[in-house]
Amino acid sequence: MAKKVLKFGGTSVGTIERIQHVAKIVKKEHDAGNKVIVVVSAMAGKTNELIKFSKKISNDFNKRELDVLLSSGEQVTSALLAGALIEKNIKSKSWLNWQIPILTEGEHSNARIVNMNISKINKFLEEGVAIIPGFQGISKNGEIMTIGRGGSDATAVAIAKLFNADSCEIYTDVDGVYSTDPNKIPLAKKIEKISYDEMLELSTLGAKVMQSSAVQTAMIYDIPLEVKSTFTNRKGTKIFNQQNIDYTKSVTGVAYSKDDAKITLIGVEDKPGVAANIFEPLNQAQINVDMVIQNVSSDQKTTDITFTIKREDLLKTKKILENNKNIVYKNITHNDKVSKISIVGAGMVSTPGVTYKMFRGLADNKINILAISTSEIKLSVIIDEENTLNAVKKLHTIFDLD
Amino acid sequence: MAKKVLKFGGTSVGTIERIQHVAKIVKKEHDAGNKVIVVVSAMAGKTNELIKFSKKISNDFNKRELDVLLSSGEQVTSALLAGALIEKNIKSKSWLNWQIPILTEGEHSNARIVNMNISKINKFLEEGVAIIPGFQGISKNGEIMTIGRGGSDATAVAIAKLFNADSCEIYTDVDGVYSTDPNKIPLAKKIEKISYDEMLELSTLGAKVMQSSAVQTAMIYDIPLEVKSTFTNRKGTKIFNQQNIDYTKSVTGVAYSKDDAKITLIGVEDKPGVAANIFEPLNQAQINVDMVIQNVSSDQKTTDITFTIKREDLLKTKKILENNKNIVYKNITHNDKVSKISIVGAGMVSTPGVTYKMFRGLADNKINILAISTSEIKLSVIIDEENTLNAVKKLHTIFDLD
Repeated sequence: MAKKVLKFGGTSVGTIERIQHVAKIVKKEHDAGNKVIVVVSAMAGKTNELIKFSKKISNDFNKRELDVLLSSGEQVTSALLAGALIEKNIKSKSWLNWQIPILTEGEHSNARIVNMNISKINKFLEEGVAIIPGFQGISKNGEIMTIGRGGSDATAVAIAKLFNADSCEIYTDVDGVYSTDPNKIPLAKKIEKISYDEMLELSTLGAKVMQSSAVQTAMIYDIPLEVKSTFTNRKGTKIFNQQNIDYTKSVTGVAYSKDDAKITLIGVEDKPGVAANIFEPLNQAQINVDMVIQNVSSDQKTTDITFTIKREDLLKTKKILENNKNIVYKNITHNDKVSKISIVGAGMVSTPGVTYKMFRGLADNKINILAISTSEIKLSVIIDEENTLNAVKKLHTIFDLD
Repeated sequence: MAKKVLKFGGTSVGTIERIQHVAKIVKKEHDAGNKVIVVVSAMAGKTNELIKFSKKISNDFNKRELDVLLSSGEQVTSALLAGALIEKNIKSKSWLNWQIPILTEGEHSNARIVNMNISKINKFLEEGVAIIPGFQGISKNGEIMTIGRGGSDATAVAIAKLFNADSCEIYTDVDGVYSTDPNKIPLAKKIEKISYDEMLELSTLGAKVMQSSAVQTAMIYDIPLEVKSTFTNRKGTKIFNQQNIDYTKSVTGVAYSKDDAKITLIGVEDKPGVAANIFEPLNQAQINVDMVIQNVSSDQKTTDITFTIKREDLLKTKKILENNKNIVYKNITHNDKVSKISIVGAGMVSTPGVTYKMFRGLADNKINILAISTSEIKLSVIIDEENTLNAVKKLHTIFDLD
């Protein structure tokens, strides 16, 4: 008898028929003798509808009230799923954030779960299935707090941790994590097992299967995850610690992000604190800087700094840089039609020649590399956007992922 | 500086634009120096949508979960209205049932408010407007409870009572209580002042302006009500104690209900307990019996009992009567195309001739009376349904209401 946390995303509970289908999956796990806690998202589209309502009223809708507003979405799904299970003669109950309670810290719309009372639910699990709305909790002052978009994943992982669950299964509308985008690259293959950090590199780069901070939490507490489809019976992707994975391939997947822009500051004064002076104002303006590359300076006095941002932030970023009196540079250039291609793999570090293979593969296909950045398990290059899919396909083949 | 409870019904908050309009009304009351508590319903159609969801899952959807489900509707409106007020620079906050808390007793979907903690909100009223979702509370075990359809009126009256408010204003989509149905009878006139009991007789008969149990509570605790339109600036209808009303007319209004059916049991044994034996099984089957008329028996041994029910309950009712072994009668007849016409007026009791005037008016128009029932402030007759509007018009004129 295992203790399982099952999480169902918005599309999995997007209609009443789908909620009834989810009830079947839950019933199967329950009938198999497992203790089951279910975490649900709002019905697909619901959260966006509520946000649209709030934006009609104000572009700066009060954050406390926004959390009261948005938390209603998961409440609805929880009650419907509990009702659907009871209809199937399974004892079940929805547990709202304040009924448990789930305690959070931090700010409205960006809180994090710090604790929850597990005794009542543990007792209830002896007889029935507990349904918990994801994405929310209460502050110590009794205010409703939400934990950011996609936060139901974080709820599921936090619950798996606090209840010491044997597994945490993330049901979604795709059947796992792929070696690259299956919608664009038909040869993409489902990954059976992946490490937390590979998953993080892939998901921040656009795999969009699971919320990154939830994967991080799972990594910290070593909670095994499984991403699988609500709509098929196929096996999903298991997410573990690196140690538990036997790497036969050096590269696990190829990810890409589009809509990027690249800015280069040429001839920046090379002295301590200059990078901080550049990026602090960008951070204050909530501009998300992705890759940062700084070369060793040739003349020991100045250096070039390149970084990438979302394309939509380009104008704002240039303005901030140009008005920034704390930095001295000769020139500023930008390219607003670039994309980032990354190969990800925990096996990379122990396989010689991966870097060389990637660069050679791109060169053979006449794809120019505009910038390079590496980490232990990831190698990213910036290229012209028009070459994106071609580059991904070639790398996918080169690293035996087809 | 007055303490006011303002309640806005579903159509009043049916769209974002309407919620913004409500915010204007609330702001005006707040700017005038009043302490304002606002009670809101769910956006029009929302509760029905959620009920439809639940019915798709089960015809007997779990009542606890139904309350969790439905209470989300008012939560959404509360957050949106609080946000709209904050956008207008008015300090405002939504207070959910468990945050206050509002304590209820009774069963799911039919609970009643018994108490609430007023200290936190009283303190908050010093600086801002409190928004409270209607229709809900929590049980002493911390379960969400709803208080029946239209229950937001009951919430408003309970809050007016507990906070000792100076007034309780029910904003809705009509601008008051009319002397008869203004949609059908163009000569219907708005009533400026009406007593609680007249209002009760009118609303149970189909005026549909306010929930009856809320009017009852207001009557018991002598809380002055005002029903007015959200969409016009016109004066509404004030609802007081009889003593505060100066009656110049014997009849205040003419109400009618359609879709009724009449059943007569002929030759019922005339002995103690016979009425209880007839109506107890109907009550158990949740059949709502409206008028009951029993004539003195002519032979001292048997009597005839006539009663009215909703037409949709006719077949079910006949079946129960025919299978009921505890009652003896000679024959059973029914008429499934009847309606009930009632004249209502607290001044009736002190005005001679009202009864005669009504019967004469109907007779002059060749409208046959099938049954009669009277109370201190109401006189109801059952007639053939086809004569309904004609009868209402004639009585409206006869009693100087045009």
